[in-house]
Amino acid sequence: MISLYDMSLSGNCHKVRLLLSLLGLSYQIQQVDLRGGEQRGPEHLQRNPFAQVPVLDDDGLIVRDSQAILVYLAKRYGGEKWWPDDAYQLAQIAAWLSTAANEIFHGPAMLRVHLKFGRAIDVEKARQTADKVVDIIDRHLQSRDWLVGERVSIADIAVYPYLALAPEGGLDIAAYPNIIAWFQRIRALHGVWRCPVCGKHKSITLII
Amino acid sequence: MISLYDMSLSGNCHKVRLLLSLLGLSYQIQQVDLRGGEQRGPEHLQRNPFAQVPVLDDDGLIVRDSQAILVYLAKRYGGEKWWPDDAYQLAQIAAWLSTAANEIFHGPAMLRVHLKFGRAIDVEKARQTADKVVDIIDRHLQSRDWLVGERVSIADIAVYPYLALAPEGGLDIAAYPNIIAWFQRIRALHGVWRCPVCGKHKSITLII
Repeated sequence: MISLYDMSLSGNCHKVRLLLSLLGLSYQIQQVDLRGGEQRGPEHLQRNPFAQVPVLDDDGLIVRDSQAILVYLAKRYGGEKWWPDDAYQLAQIAAWLSTAANEIFHGPAMLRVHLKFGRAIDVEKARQTADKVVDIIDRHLQSRDWLVGERVSIADIAVYPYLALAPEGGLDIAAYPNIIAWFQRIRALHGVWRCPVCGKHKSITLII
Repeated sequence: MISLYDMSLSGNCHKVRLLLSLLGLSYQIQQVDLRGGEQRGPEHLQRNPFAQVPVLDDDGLIVRDSQAILVYLAKRYGGEKWWPDDAYQLAQIAAWLSTAANEIFHGPAMLRVHLKFGRAIDVEKARQTADKVVDIIDRHLQSRDWLVGERVSIADIAVYPYLALAPEGGLDIAAYPNIIAWFQRIRALHGVWRCPVCGKHKSITLII
Protein backbone atom coordinates (compact mmCIF):
# COMPACT_ATOMS: atom_id res chain seq x y z
CA MET A 1 0.00 0.00 0.00
CA ILE A 2 1.13 3.53 -0.81
CA SER A 3 0.98 6.06 2.04
CA LEU A 4 1.49 9.76 1.46
CA TYR A 5 2.63 11.87 4.39
CA ASP A 6 0.80 14.98 3.42
CA MET A 7 -0.33 18.49 4.28
CA SER A 8 -3.37 19.54 2.31
CA LEU A 9 -2.31 23.17 1.64
CA SER A 10 1.21 22.26 0.47
CA GLY A 11 1.92 22.73 -3.24
CA ASN A 12 4.71 20.17 -2.97
CA CYS A 13 2.21 17.60 -1.69
CA HIS A 14 -0.23 18.67 -4.40
CA LYS A 15 2.28 17.59 -7.09
CA VAL A 16 2.32 14.09 -5.70
CA ARG A 17 -1.47 13.82 -5.32
CA LEU A 18 -1.81 15.02 -8.89
CA LEU A 19 0.48 12.33 -10.29
CA LEU A 20 -1.03 9.60 -8.11
CA SER A 21 -4.39 10.59 -9.52
CA LEU A 22 -3.16 10.68 -13.13
CA LEU A 23 -1.61 7.24 -12.68
CA GLY A 24 -4.76 5.88 -11.06
CA LEU A 25 -2.97 4.65 -7.98
CA SER A 26 -4.74 3.95 -4.70
CA TYR A 27 -3.13 5.52 -1.68
CA GLN A 28 -3.83 6.57 1.83
CA ILE A 29 -3.18 10.01 3.27
CA GLN A 30 -1.31 10.46 6.53
CA GLN A 31 -1.77 14.07 7.56
CA VAL A 32 1.31 15.57 9.18
CA ASP A 33 0.48 18.33 11.65
CA LEU A 34 2.98 21.00 10.56
CA ARG A 35 1.52 23.65 12.89
CA GLY A 36 1.96 21.29 15.81
CA GLY A 37 5.57 20.56 14.75
CA GLU A 38 4.99 16.87 13.98
CA GLN A 39 7.49 17.12 11.09
CA ARG A 40 10.27 17.70 13.63
CA GLY A 41 9.32 14.73 15.79
CA PRO A 42 11.54 11.63 15.80
CA GLU A 43 9.12 9.51 13.74
CA HIS A 44 8.94 11.96 10.85
CA LEU A 45 12.66 12.82 11.00
CA GLN A 46 13.30 9.11 10.56
CA ARG A 47 11.33 9.32 7.29
CA ASN A 48 12.81 12.65 6.25
CA PRO A 49 15.67 14.34 8.11
CA PHE A 50 14.81 17.59 6.30
CA ALA A 51 11.58 17.72 8.36
CA GLN A 52 9.41 18.30 5.30
CA VAL A 53 6.40 16.86 3.55
CA PRO A 54 5.63 15.11 1.28
CA VAL A 55 7.13 11.74 2.03
CA LEU A 56 5.97 8.61 0.20
CA ASP A 57 5.97 5.17 1.77
CA ASP A 58 5.44 2.42 -0.80
CA ASP A 59 5.34 -0.83 1.13
CA GLY A 60 8.26 0.28 3.28
CA LEU A 61 10.28 2.06 0.59
CA ILE A 62 10.51 5.63 1.85
CA VAL A 63 11.02 8.48 -0.61
CA ARG A 64 11.52 12.10 0.50
CA ASP A 65 11.33 15.23 -1.70
CA SER A 66 8.43 16.01 -4.03
CA GLN A 67 10.54 15.85 -7.21
CA ALA A 68 12.04 12.51 -6.20
CA ILE A 69 8.58 11.11 -5.48
CA LEU A 70 7.48 12.11 -8.98
CA VAL A 71 10.54 10.33 -10.40
CA TYR A 72 9.75 7.24 -8.33
CA LEU A 73 6.08 7.05 -9.32
CA ALA A 74 6.76 7.81 -12.99
CA LYS A 75 9.49 5.17 -13.28
CA ARG A 76 7.81 2.53 -11.12
CA TYR A 77 4.20 2.86 -12.28
CA GLY A 78 4.06 5.17 -15.30
CA GLY A 79 5.65 3.20 -18.12
CA GLU A 80 7.52 4.93 -20.92
CA LYS A 81 4.73 7.49 -21.33
CA TRP A 82 5.72 8.96 -17.99
CA TRP A 83 9.39 7.95 -17.87
CA PRO A 84 10.98 8.22 -21.31
CA ASP A 85 14.04 6.16 -22.15
CA ASP A 86 15.69 8.94 -24.14
CA ALA A 87 18.60 10.70 -22.37
CA TYR A 88 17.83 14.11 -23.85
CA GLN A 89 14.17 14.00 -22.84
CA LEU A 90 15.09 12.85 -19.34
CA ALA A 91 17.62 15.67 -19.08
CA GLN A 92 15.05 18.28 -20.06
CA ILE A 93 12.67 16.87 -17.44
CA ALA A 94 15.50 16.92 -14.87
CA ALA A 95 16.22 20.59 -15.69
CA TRP A 96 12.61 21.53 -14.84
CA LEU A 97 12.74 19.43 -11.66
CA SER A 98 15.74 21.55 -10.62
CA THR A 99 13.79 24.70 -11.48
CA ALA A 100 10.91 23.44 -9.33
CA ALA A 101 13.26 22.72 -6.40
CA ASN A 102 15.07 26.04 -6.76
CA GLU A 103 13.45 29.02 -8.52
CA ILE A 104 9.80 27.96 -8.21
CA PHE A 105 10.27 27.18 -4.53
CA HIS A 106 12.28 30.31 -3.70
CA GLY A 107 10.05 32.54 -5.86
CA PRO A 108 6.29 31.91 -6.13
CA ALA A 109 6.11 29.38 -3.28
CA MET A 110 7.96 31.63 -0.81
CA LEU A 111 5.82 34.67 -1.70
CA ARG A 112 2.75 32.55 -0.92
CA VAL A 113 4.20 31.25 2.36
CA HIS A 114 4.88 34.85 3.30
CA LEU A 115 1.48 36.28 2.40
CA LYS A 116 -0.68 33.33 3.43
CA PHE A 117 1.19 32.01 6.46
CA GLY A 118 3.19 35.07 7.56
CA ARG A 119 6.66 33.60 7.28
CA ALA A 120 9.45 36.23 7.26
CA ILE A 121 11.28 36.18 3.92
CA ASP A 122 13.28 38.54 1.73
CA VAL A 123 10.24 39.66 -0.27
CA GLU A 124 12.14 41.64 -2.88
CA LYS A 125 14.46 38.77 -3.69
CA ALA A 126 11.60 36.24 -3.86
CA ARG A 127 9.71 38.63 -6.11
CA GLN A 128 12.68 38.98 -8.48
CA THR A 129 13.13 35.20 -8.59
CA ALA A 130 9.40 34.71 -9.23
CA ASP A 131 9.17 37.36 -11.97
CA LYS A 132 12.19 35.90 -13.76
CA VAL A 133 11.06 32.27 -13.69
CA VAL A 134 7.45 33.06 -14.62
CA ASP A 135 8.63 35.12 -17.57
CA ILE A 136 10.98 32.34 -18.74
CA ILE A 137 8.23 29.73 -18.49
CA ASP A 138 5.72 31.91 -20.35
CA ARG A 139 8.21 32.40 -23.21
CA HIS A 140 9.07 28.71 -23.19
CA LEU A 141 5.38 27.82 -23.58
CA GLN A 142 4.90 30.26 -26.45
CA SER A 143 5.64 27.57 -29.01
CA ARG A 144 4.92 24.48 -26.92
CA ASP A 145 1.95 22.78 -25.29
CA TRP A 146 4.03 21.14 -22.54
CA LEU A 147 7.32 21.93 -20.83
CA VAL A 148 9.08 18.92 -22.40
CA GLY A 149 8.17 17.02 -25.56
CA GLU A 150 4.72 16.40 -26.97
CA ARG A 151 2.79 15.35 -23.90
CA VAL A 152 2.43 16.06 -20.22
CA SER A 153 5.40 14.91 -18.13
CA ILE A 154 6.48 15.12 -14.51
CA ALA A 155 8.16 18.43 -15.48
CA ASP A 156 4.68 19.98 -15.83
CA ILE A 157 3.45 18.29 -12.66
CA ALA A 158 6.44 19.60 -10.67
CA VAL A 159 6.09 23.18 -11.88
CA TYR A 160 2.29 23.52 -11.99
CA PRO A 161 1.09 23.74 -8.35
CA TYR A 162 3.07 26.75 -7.15
CA LEU A 163 2.29 28.64 -10.37
CA ALA A 164 -1.40 27.84 -10.00
CA LEU A 165 -1.20 29.01 -6.38
CA ALA A 166 0.91 32.08 -7.22
CA PRO A 167 -1.98 34.57 -6.89
CA GLU A 168 -2.09 33.63 -3.18
CA GLY A 169 1.42 35.14 -3.05
CA GLY A 170 0.36 38.28 -4.87
CA LEU A 171 1.67 37.30 -8.32
CA ASP A 172 -0.52 38.25 -11.26
CA ILE A 173 -0.28 35.16 -13.45
CA ALA A 174 -3.15 36.45 -15.63
CA ALA A 175 -0.55 38.64 -17.36
CA TYR A 176 1.09 35.49 -18.80
CA PRO A 177 -1.19 34.12 -21.53
CA ASN A 178 0.90 31.06 -22.39
CA ILE A 179 0.95 29.92 -18.78
CA ILE A 180 -2.82 30.44 -18.53
CA ALA A 181 -3.34 28.29 -21.67
CA TRP A 182 -1.05 25.60 -20.20
CA PHE A 183 -3.08 25.68 -16.94
CA GLN A 184 -6.15 24.88 -19.05
CA ARG A 185 -4.40 21.92 -20.71
CA ILE A 186 -3.37 20.54 -17.34
CA ARG A 187 -6.86 21.04 -15.91
CA ALA A 188 -8.35 19.18 -18.88
CA LEU A 189 -6.36 16.02 -18.08
CA HIS A 190 -8.34 13.18 -16.66
CA GLY A 191 -7.27 11.11 -13.76
CA VAL A 192 -8.34 7.60 -12.98
CA TRP A 193 -9.54 6.44 -9.65
CA ARG A 194 -9.29 2.83 -8.60
CA CYS A 195 -11.84 1.53 -6.15
CA PRO A 196 -9.94 0.03 -3.21
CA VAL A 197 -12.72 -2.56 -2.76
CA CYS A 198 -13.49 -3.88 -6.25
CA GLY A 199 -10.28 -2.73 -7.98
CA LYS A 200 -12.18 -1.27 -10.94
CA HIS A 201 -11.02 1.96 -12.55
CA LYS A 202 -13.18 4.99 -13.10
CA SER A 203 -12.22 8.10 -15.03
CA ILE A 204 -12.47 11.22 -12.89
CA THR A 205 -11.97 14.90 -13.36
CA LEU A 206 -8.85 15.92 -11.49
CA ILE A 207 -9.29 18.17 -8.52
CA ILE A 208 -6.65 20.80 -9.23
CA MET B 1 31.65 16.71 -30.08
CA ILE B 2 30.71 17.72 -26.52
CA SER B 3 31.14 21.40 -25.64
CA LEU B 4 30.84 22.64 -22.08
CA TYR B 5 29.95 26.29 -21.55
CA ASP B 6 31.94 26.75 -18.43
CA MET B 7 33.32 29.06 -15.77
CA SER B 8 36.35 27.61 -14.05
CA LEU B 9 35.51 28.78 -10.49
CA SER B 10 31.90 27.57 -10.61
CA GLY B 11 31.07 24.56 -8.43
CA ASN B 12 28.12 23.80 -10.70
CA CYS B 13 30.50 23.54 -13.66
CA HIS B 14 32.90 21.51 -11.54
CA LYS B 15 30.21 18.80 -11.14
CA VAL B 16 30.01 18.40 -14.88
CA ARG B 17 33.78 18.35 -15.46
CA LEU B 18 34.07 15.74 -12.72
CA LEU B 19 31.54 13.39 -14.35
CA LEU B 20 32.95 13.95 -17.85
CA SER B 21 36.32 12.94 -16.45
CA LEU B 22 34.96 9.89 -14.62
CA LEU B 23 33.22 8.77 -17.82
CA GLY B 24 36.34 9.34 -19.90
CA LEU B 25 34.58 11.62 -22.36
CA SER B 26 36.45 14.08 -24.58
CA TYR B 27 35.06 17.58 -24.54
CA GLN B 28 35.97 21.13 -25.29
CA ILE B 29 35.59 24.04 -22.92
CA GLN B 30 33.87 27.24 -23.97
CA GLN B 31 34.61 29.81 -21.27
CA VAL B 32 31.70 32.15 -20.57
CA ASP B 33 32.81 35.56 -19.33
CA LEU B 34 30.45 36.00 -16.37
CA ARG B 35 32.16 39.19 -15.16
CA GLY B 36 31.69 40.71 -18.60
CA GLY B 37 28.00 39.68 -18.62
CA GLU B 38 28.30 37.23 -21.53
CA GLN B 39 25.71 34.97 -19.86
CA ARG B 40 23.08 37.66 -20.42
CA GLY B 41 23.92 38.11 -24.10
CA PRO B 42 21.51 36.82 -26.77
CA GLU B 43 23.70 33.86 -27.76
CA HIS B 44 23.93 32.45 -24.26
CA LEU B 45 20.28 33.22 -23.42
CA GLN B 46 19.37 31.12 -26.45
CA ARG B 47 21.23 28.23 -24.82
CA ASN B 48 19.93 28.96 -21.34
CA PRO B 49 17.26 31.59 -20.61
CA PHE B 50 18.25 31.42 -16.92
CA ALA B 51 21.57 33.09 -17.91
CA GLN B 52 23.64 30.53 -16.06
CA VAL B 53 26.48 28.12 -16.60
CA PRO B 54 27.04 25.25 -17.12
CA VAL B 55 25.37 24.43 -20.40
CA LEU B 56 26.25 21.29 -22.34
CA ASP B 57 26.09 21.07 -26.12
CA ASP B 58 26.34 17.49 -27.36
CA ASP B 59 26.31 17.67 -31.14
CA GLY B 60 23.54 20.26 -31.06
CA LEU B 61 21.54 18.86 -28.13
CA ILE B 62 21.60 21.65 -25.57
CA VAL B 63 21.17 20.84 -21.88
CA ARG B 64 20.96 23.54 -19.18
CA ASP B 65 21.26 23.04 -15.39
CA SER B 66 24.09 21.15 -13.74
CA GLN B 67 21.86 18.43 -12.31
CA ALA B 68 20.18 17.86 -15.67
CA ILE B 69 23.58 17.60 -17.38
CA LEU B 70 24.60 14.91 -14.89
CA VAL B 71 21.38 13.03 -15.68
CA TYR B 72 22.05 13.37 -19.41
CA LEU B 73 25.65 12.16 -19.26
CA ALA B 74 24.89 9.33 -16.84
CA LYS B 75 21.98 8.01 -18.92
CA ARG B 76 23.57 8.57 -22.32
CA TYR B 77 27.14 7.47 -21.64
CA GLY B 78 27.31 5.88 -18.20
CA GLY B 79 25.51 2.56 -18.52
CA GLU B 80 23.63 1.04 -15.62
CA LYS B 81 26.57 1.67 -13.30
CA TRP B 82 25.80 5.39 -13.51
CA TRP B 83 22.08 5.25 -14.32
CA PRO B 84 20.39 2.44 -12.41
CA ASP B 85 17.16 0.94 -13.73
CA ASP B 86 15.63 0.59 -10.26
CA ALA B 87 12.92 3.16 -9.43
CA TYR B 88 13.84 3.39 -5.75
CA GLN B 89 17.52 3.98 -6.48
CA LEU B 90 16.66 6.61 -9.10
CA ALA B 91 14.33 8.32 -6.64
CA GLN B 92 17.02 8.48 -3.97
CA ILE B 93 19.40 10.00 -6.53
CA ALA B 94 16.69 12.48 -7.57
CA ALA B 95 16.18 13.51 -3.93
CA TRP B 96 19.88 14.46 -3.64
CA LEU B 97 19.74 16.29 -6.97
CA SER B 98 16.91 18.40 -5.47
CA THR B 99 19.02 18.97 -2.36
CA ALA B 100 21.91 20.10 -4.59
CA ALA B 101 19.63 22.51 -6.51
CA ASN B 102 18.02 23.85 -3.35
CA GLU B 103 19.76 23.58 0.04
CA ILE B 104 23.34 23.13 -1.17
CA PHE B 105 22.98 26.04 -3.56
CA HIS B 106 21.21 28.35 -1.10
CA GLY B 107 23.49 27.34 1.78
CA PRO B 108 27.20 26.57 1.20
CA ALA B 109 27.31 27.89 -2.38
CA MET B 110 25.70 31.23 -1.48
CA LEU B 111 28.02 31.73 1.52
CA ARG B 112 30.97 31.23 -0.82
CA VAL B 113 29.56 33.62 -3.44
CA HIS B 114 29.17 36.18 -0.68
CA LEU B 115 32.62 35.80 0.88
CA LYS B 116 34.63 35.20 -2.30
CA PHE B 117 32.79 37.39 -4.81
CA GLY B 118 31.06 39.94 -2.56
CA ARG B 119 27.46 39.23 -3.58
CA ALA B 120 24.87 40.61 -1.14
CA ILE B 121 22.90 37.76 0.46
CA ASP B 122 20.97 37.06 3.65
CA VAL B 123 24.00 35.61 5.45
CA GLU B 124 22.14 34.35 8.50
CA LYS B 125 19.59 32.45 6.44
CA ALA B 126 22.27 30.95 4.17
CA ARG B 127 24.23 29.93 7.26
CA GLN B 128 21.18 28.19 8.79
CA THR B 129 20.49 26.37 5.53
CA ALA B 130 24.14 25.34 5.25
CA ASP B 131 24.44 24.14 8.86
CA LYS B 132 21.27 22.07 8.53
CA VAL B 133 22.16 20.38 5.24
CA VAL B 134 25.77 19.68 6.23
CA ASP B 135 24.62 18.11 9.49
CA ILE B 136 22.04 15.94 7.68
CA ILE B 137 24.64 14.76 5.14
CA ASP B 138 27.19 13.97 7.85
CA ARG B 139 24.64 11.85 9.72
CA HIS B 140 23.53 10.20 6.47
CA LEU B 141 27.15 9.19 5.74
CA GLN B 142 27.68 7.78 9.21
CA SER B 143 26.66 4.31 8.07
CA ARG B 144 27.25 4.66 4.32
CA ASP B 145 30.17 5.12 1.95
CA TRP B 146 28.10 6.93 -0.69
CA LEU B 147 24.94 9.02 -0.67
CA VAL B 148 22.94 6.34 -2.53
CA GLY B 149 23.59 2.61 -2.75
CA GLU B 150 26.93 0.85 -2.78
CA ARG B 151 28.92 2.94 -5.23
CA VAL B 152 29.46 6.50 -6.35
CA SER B 153 26.52 8.01 -8.22
CA ILE B 154 25.59 11.38 -9.68
CA ALA B 155 24.09 12.16 -6.26
CA ASP B 156 27.64 12.33 -4.86
CA ILE B 157 28.88 14.27 -7.89
CA ALA B 158 26.05 16.84 -7.53
CA VAL B 159 26.59 17.41 -3.82
CA TYR B 160 30.40 17.24 -3.62
CA PRO B 161 31.77 20.47 -5.18
CA TYR B 162 30.02 23.05 -3.00
CA LEU B 163 30.80 21.03 0.14
CA ALA B 164 34.45 20.74 -0.88
CA LEU B 165 34.46 24.51 -1.54
CA ALA B 166 32.52 25.32 1.65
CA PRO B 167 35.59 26.59 3.58
CA GLU B 168 35.78 29.41 1.02
CA GLY B 169 32.39 30.47 2.41
CA GLY B 170 33.58 30.25 6.01
CA LEU B 171 32.06 26.84 6.80
CA ASP B 172 34.18 24.54 8.94
CA ILE B 173 33.67 21.18 7.25
CA ALA B 174 36.52 19.67 9.30
CA ALA B 175 34.00 19.32 12.13
CA TYR B 176 32.11 16.70 10.09
CA PRO B 177 34.19 13.52 10.06
CA ASN B 178 31.87 11.47 7.85
CA ILE B 179 31.89 14.13 5.16
CA ILE B 180 35.69 14.33 5.35
CA ALA B 181 35.95 10.55 4.91
CA TRP B 182 33.55 10.74 1.95
CA PHE B 183 35.71 13.49 0.40
CA GLN B 184 38.64 11.08 0.57
CA ARG B 185 36.65 8.36 -1.20
CA ILE B 186 35.66 10.75 -3.97
CA ARG B 187 39.22 12.00 -4.33
CA ALA B 188 40.46 8.42 -4.62
CA LEU B 189 38.31 7.81 -7.71
CA HIS B 190 40.17 7.64 -10.97
CA GLY B 191 39.08 9.33 -14.08
CA VAL B 192 39.96 8.33 -17.57
CA TRP B 193 41.21 10.63 -20.22
CA ARG B 194 40.74 9.87 -23.87
CA CYS B 195 43.28 11.27 -26.31
CA PRO B 196 41.33 13.25 -28.91
CA VAL B 197 43.93 12.24 -31.55
CA CYS B 198 44.51 8.50 -31.10
CA GLY B 199 41.34 7.72 -29.08
CA LYS B 200 43.28 5.70 -26.47
CA HIS B 201 42.31 5.89 -22.83
CA LYS B 202 44.64 6.72 -19.98
CA SER B 203 43.79 6.54 -16.30
CA ILE B 204 44.31 9.87 -14.58
CA THR B 205 44.02 11.20 -11.10
CA LEU B 206 41.07 13.52 -10.93
CA ILE B 207 41.77 17.15 -10.32
CA ILE B 208 39.25 17.88 -7.56
